[in-house]
Amino acid sequence: MKRLAAMLASILLPFPAFADDQLPSWNDGPHKQAIINFVEKVTKQGTPDFVAPDDRIAVFDNDGTLWSEQPIYVQGVFVFDRVKALSNQHPEWQDKEPFKSLLKGDLEGLLAGGEAALAELVMATHAGITTEEFSSVVKEWISSAKHPKTGKLYTEMTFKPMLELLAYLRANGFKTFIVSGGGIEFMRPWAGTVYGIAPEQVIGTSIVTKFELQDGRPVLMRLPEINFINDKEGKPVGINQHIGRRPIAAFGNSDGDLAMLQWTCSAPGPRFCLYVHHTDGEREVAYDRKSHVGQLDKGLDEAAAKGWTVVDMKDDWKRVFAHEN
Amino acid sequence: MKRLAAMLASILLPFPAFADDQLPSWNDGPHKQAIINFVEKVTKQGTPDFVAPDDRIAVFDNDGTLWSEQPIYVQGVFVFDRVKALSNQHPEWQDKEPFKSLLKGDLEGLLAGGEAALAELVMATHAGITTEEFSSVVKEWISSAKHPKTGKLYTEMTFKPMLELLAYLRANGFKTFIVSGGGIEFMRPWAGTVYGIAPEQVIGTSIVTKFELQDGRPVLMRLPEINFINDKEGKPVGINQHIGRRPIAAFGNSDGDLAMLQWTCSAPGPRFCLYVHHTDGEREVAYDRKSHVGQLDKGLDEAAAKGWTVVDMKDDWKRVFAHEN
Repeated sequence: MKRLAAMLASILLPFPAFADDQLPSWNDGPHKQAIINFVEKVTKQGTPDFVAPDDRIAVFDNDGTLWSEQPIYVQGVFVFDRVKALSNQHPEWQDKEPFKSLLKGDLEGLLAGGEAALAELVMATHAGITTEEFSSVVKEWISSAKHPKTGKLYTEMTFKPMLELLAYLRANGFKTFIVSGGGIEFMRPWAGTVYGIAPEQVIGTSIVTKFELQDGRPVLMRLPEINFINDKEGKPVGINQHIGRRPIAAFGNSDGDLAMLQWTCSAPGPRFCLYVHHTDGEREVAYDRKSHVGQLDKGLDEAAAKGWTVVDMKDDWKRVFAHEN
Repeated sequence: MKRLAAMLASILLPFPAFADDQLPSWNDGPHKQAIINFVEKVTKQGTPDFVAPDDRIAVFDNDGTLWSEQPIYVQGVFVFDRVKALSNQHPEWQDKEPFKSLLKGDLEGLLAGGEAALAELVMATHAGITTEEFSSVVKEWISSAKHPKTGKLYTEMTFKPMLELLAYLRANGFKTFIVSGGGIEFMRPWAGTVYGIAPEQVIGTSIVTKFELQDGRPVLMRLPEINFINDKEGKPVGINQHIGRRPIAAFGNSDGDLAMLQWTCSAPGPRFCLYVHHTDGEREVAYDRKSHVGQLDKGLDEAAAKGWTVVDMKDDWKRVFAHEN
């Protein structure tokens, strides 16, 4: 039996999917293979497709690509929880919209305020404190807040196949970046432990900060003013501002990522663009062209036209979440 | 003789300045020793001052700290040269200020326009093209433009002791960043080869860019509009935006760097702040409290009050420029 196993191993080991599989949560098939083929191509020295390690830049959307964005964005839950936590210090919120509706759990009343109401909630919960205070608030929240359906920590609602993909790329000399429409300072406090991505490799939407001396101690105060919206056509702008060069690989799940994928895959040389398609209504949520959260409509067409890889979550992923075995 | 040399070596080698000196262009003395002491302190595992490699963030000003900013900022020369190069395509500039004065070499006429004139020249030479076109223009210019006094390439007017310091820090696990008031896209094209600093580790002043499709090809157009001024109180803001955490070491030469040094050295834990003091009127230019370029006035007082290291270029540096042997 031992000899047979050794023989089998010697036959199978040359195939990457069998030899020390670094993407064990991915089912074998053309999509997993497309990832492996790309990585092997750009890392093979002496070939025309070889890319120097310095230029192996890979960018990842966060919401819906690295963790679940359903039923609502995690940062939205943070805003709700934070308004409740701060309401003791703000007795006036009991009679003031949009806080009043939120505190009463009146979703309709809340939505009646439209985007202006949402912006007011975001600023009330994200501004008026220093960068370091905000980081502490986020760290504390993320360590205890639970997903409404699964009861798991949000950091356990990250997609296991994508965590493996991040690690696999880094093991092959890639620098991995998050490029998200979410708040840059909302992601940085935990992106290191959860994704292995350092704060300087997190790009996101930001509000204005201001250098001040508080009793002679320098702080950065967070002001209630948008600095940059890192979404849609803003993503390539944010990438250029932070990274200063074009990525060779981009990973997203919605039309909000389309410009980022176009920017990444339209230059000469080997490029890789991938959409995560939410096809699994049982293990997660099935949504695409008509969804309010994470709509993927134009992107599906463009992916088909350009030959980008479209991952079918239901078929391609053995497991979905980090908390699964 | 051989035995004597071996004996001497065995006595002297335990002293860092003699054993494999990684800062050979620095004269031995308290300032060189302060650098070495700091690096040895934060890299010694198992001690309270040990800093994990991930958190070893060092930030460097560029103009006057890593290369000479005298007699005028290098990027200013670029603007002048670029206006001249573009004037063929702009016959109207012959009769239009501030271009007219610049093209005639009339410095007084040029200065009469004040900051608005300067801004117009910057936008005419930095905007209206794509990010990739601008990068090519800068690369071509920097590979041939020469310093007016020395006739050397500007990239040879970098400070050799500072290049050694960058390499020494990186050899000890530090991530080195440029944090400059200069243009982020003006520095990135050559910071890799000259300083060993990748584009994503260059932070600077920026103009607005916009994602566009040109004949179906995605580009980022540079617009004639300031995005962010990364100077003075803007430096800690830029550091937070790009790096997302506080550096443990900061290096500058002017009051424009003061807020960055304050931000770096005001937090708990081991910190290192250093000013390069331009004291060498023979080998470079001697200037500080009253200078128009690179004024160092408040910074000298703060450095004395806080015990920051102030490098005396004349006494502390064996060589000044990268082109010297």
